[in-house]
Amino acid sequence: MAGIEAQAGANRFGPRIMSLAEHLAQWSEQPDALTVTYFSEAHRKVAAELDVLLRAAGMEVRTDPIGNVVGRYKAAQPNAKTLLLGSHYDTVRNGGKYDGRLGILVPLVLIEHLNRTRQRLPFNIELLCFSEEEGVRFPIGYLGSQAIAGKFDRKNLDATDDDGIPLRKALEEAGVDVGSLASLARKQDDLLGYVELHIEQGPSLLNADVPVAIVTGIAGAVRHRVTVEGEAGHAGTVAMQFRRDAGAAAAEMILALEKRCQEIPSLVGTVGQLLVPNGAMNVIPGRCEFSSDIRASTNGVRDAAMMDVLSSFNQIARHRGVKVSAEEVLRMSAIPLSPYFQERLKAAAERLGVSPLLLPSGAGHDAAMMSSLTPSAMMFVRCGNGGVSHSPLEIVAEEDADFAARVLLDFLLNLAEEHNA
Amino acid sequence: MAGIEAQAGANRFGPRIMSLAEHLAQWSEQPDALTVTYFSEAHRKVAAELDVLLRAAGMEVRTDPIGNVVGRYKAAQPNAKTLLLGSHYDTVRNGGKYDGRLGILVPLVLIEHLNRTRQRLPFNIELLCFSEEEGVRFPIGYLGSQAIAGKFDRKNLDATDDDGIPLRKALEEAGVDVGSLASLARKQDDLLGYVELHIEQGPSLLNADVPVAIVTGIAGAVRHRVTVEGEAGHAGTVAMQFRRDAGAAAAEMILALEKRCQEIPSLVGTVGQLLVPNGAMNVIPGRCEFSSDIRASTNGVRDAAMMDVLSSFNQIARHRGVKVSAEEVLRMSAIPLSPYFQERLKAAAERLGVSPLLLPSGAGHDAAMMSSLTPSAMMFVRCGNGGVSHSPLEIVAEEDADFAARVLLDFLLNLAEEHNA
Repeated sequence: MAGIEAQAGANRFGPRIMSLAEHLAQWSEQPDALTVTYFSEAHRKVAAELDVLLRAAGMEVRTDPIGNVVGRYKAAQPNAKTLLLGSHYDTVRNGGKYDGRLGILVPLVLIEHLNRTRQRLPFNIELLCFSEEEGVRFPIGYLGSQAIAGKFDRKNLDATDDDGIPLRKALEEAGVDVGSLASLARKQDDLLGYVELHIEQGPSLLNADVPVAIVTGIAGAVRHRVTVEGEAGHAGTVAMQFRRDAGAAAAEMILALEKRCQEIPSLVGTVGQLLVPNGAMNVIPGRCEFSSDIRASTNGVRDAAMMDVLSSFNQIARHRGVKVSAEEVLRMSAIPLSPYFQERLKAAAERLGVSPLLLPSGAGHDAAMMSSLTPSAMMFVRCGNGGVSHSPLEIVAEEDADFAARVLLDFLLNLAEEHNA
Repeated sequence: MAGIEAQAGANRFGPRIMSLAEHLAQWSEQPDALTVTYFSEAHRKVAAELDVLLRAAGMEVRTDPIGNVVGRYKAAQPNAKTLLLGSHYDTVRNGGKYDGRLGILVPLVLIEHLNRTRQRLPFNIELLCFSEEEGVRFPIGYLGSQAIAGKFDRKNLDATDDDGIPLRKALEEAGVDVGSLASLARKQDDLLGYVELHIEQGPSLLNADVPVAIVTGIAGAVRHRVTVEGEAGHAGTVAMQFRRDAGAAAAEMILALEKRCQEIPSLVGTVGQLLVPNGAMNVIPGRCEFSSDIRASTNGVRDAAMMDVLSSFNQIARHRGVKVSAEEVLRMSAIPLSPYFQERLKAAAERLGVSPLLLPSGAGHDAAMMSSLTPSAMMFVRCGNGGVSHSPLEIVAEEDADFAARVLLDFLLNLAEEHNA
């Protein structure tokens, strides 16, 4: 899909990005899998290596108390504002080499390039290598970006890992003054915004044969636990028309949810849990339980879908003579991303000959936290292997990493021109 | 529904049947529930009481080694053939007072009536009170009728109860010579047939407002364990059109099975077990497992439905890009019942002003065993309370018990006339 212009400068950055991803993947908590969880030894080693790499790229570097490695590539002039770039360097257990890290390595190689070619922009660039996003060791997530965004909740300190160690203790043992964490919050006045690159973690780009997407928003989710109560009965003695089968009713509800969520591209709906409790082959289900997870890039689209789905559940229940109840167990607001940055990222891709997809992000990312601090944007990079992520099978093609880097560079240089104008 | 003629003699037998059902329900293994399992103390007490009741009704009575209480009401003349009537006196745990026992008590009160009015028929009547049908203590079922029908399998003797006691040991402890069991098999030449009354255990009669049904056959069943394999994925990041959701595919299959089995009244299909293993709210199901149980009154109807259902499973799987596999785990042949007796039972009900329903039996009954020995028939009696059975909520209306008794008496007297003619 990439046009002639895009091909012209192709693969200037790809090899370096790929080799850095391999390089960082050498540190792991497990011998045959990539696992880097918060404040493990592997985690500290990756942080130390990032410090080295960022310094070598001409940045001023510090590691803050929460473990973020922050590199600053100074602007051409003093008192300039700052553009934040970055993502996270922790991984899930047995994860991939690109989830999070691609959003660190692409800006890194661009800053290496700017530094090598002695270019300074009219704004500072800060590369934020967030220490924790995945919520693996402690059941929280976004520890790094929460702190920077000024959203770190002191209640987090009481969360414990699988060994019963509270976060507070883990920080104190690492020499961190937990009282200092609040001071990590950045002042918005200094900031231009935050831009994050991330692998898509899904197959949309792969299927559309497009290397990058501009993210239109981070989906809001609403989750329910749904219970259908019908009437148990003998599988042989109750004629079909007299049944009040909770399992068949649930099946119809699942398809109604699926159908409604297929209507709008930015909407997804999932029944991840499904069970007839104590089911027996010769007993008509008297009860069926399932979960519902509905996400969309705006709260409005999500809530309209949710209302329709719950209403169809009720209709199906009435029609079948069963009872249905749905308990809301989670509600996360959709997070809009900056239209200003979206437009400029899109224009950059187009200048390089590619019409990027416009996709919502169904998963949360550090940008979800950062958007409360400063205008934020995201660009997705095509995920190979069917779109698999959180897996050792996760891959990004070298050409796609390269293309993403060239888009981001074009974006930065055009933003610089706007600021100089 | 019962016409004027039927009403004329109404409720001659009802009160006695109801009071005997209450009477027998006083013996149970549990204080607040009716539970009478094989060779428990309650079971022996019920057997002893049946012996007393049958003797008082003018029968010769013996309890055979497998625990069947067998009463013989002699024919008017020697060397007559024998008509078998009966059902079982064991119950499920926390069961009802009528399942099985109604088929003992209705013939009992009729024999009481014949004895009281000094009527002998041109054939012997044997009332078979089967000791075991439900398969609760040992996972077998039909122990009593298996022995009489000559279908007792010696492998049964190795089956164990929940305490690990083999059936062989339970029998030996009760003083039974297990070598003698084979001799319980009856010779067919002596027999006219077997007729069993049973509560319907479903709501068809209730919904049709008809007190009795003639059973057209005992359904054949085929059971499968079905596994759907799709692709797990993040509930937020995989757009609907790229999913291979094993749960949604299973939901579509369940509805296809339901729809196909709704096409023919004598056909039923049930998905009693349903599970997404290790399901999580935010993960698209990569696997879903469910059971399929399809029954019909003929093997042909059952197998045609099964083939169509499996074919629709394959179509749905192909359409959705998932894999489906179905393992057959049980196949029981449909058992036709005697058209000769069906016709005469139907005529008897009609003479009493009722057009009986013609229903298949979805569940197995002692008649399933007996039909291999002698022409067999069944009459269902309306089950109250929405058709619930295997439950303390199981009820039979006194008028319906009475009506069933009058139908059976009419049937017997007309059969007697045929024999005398």
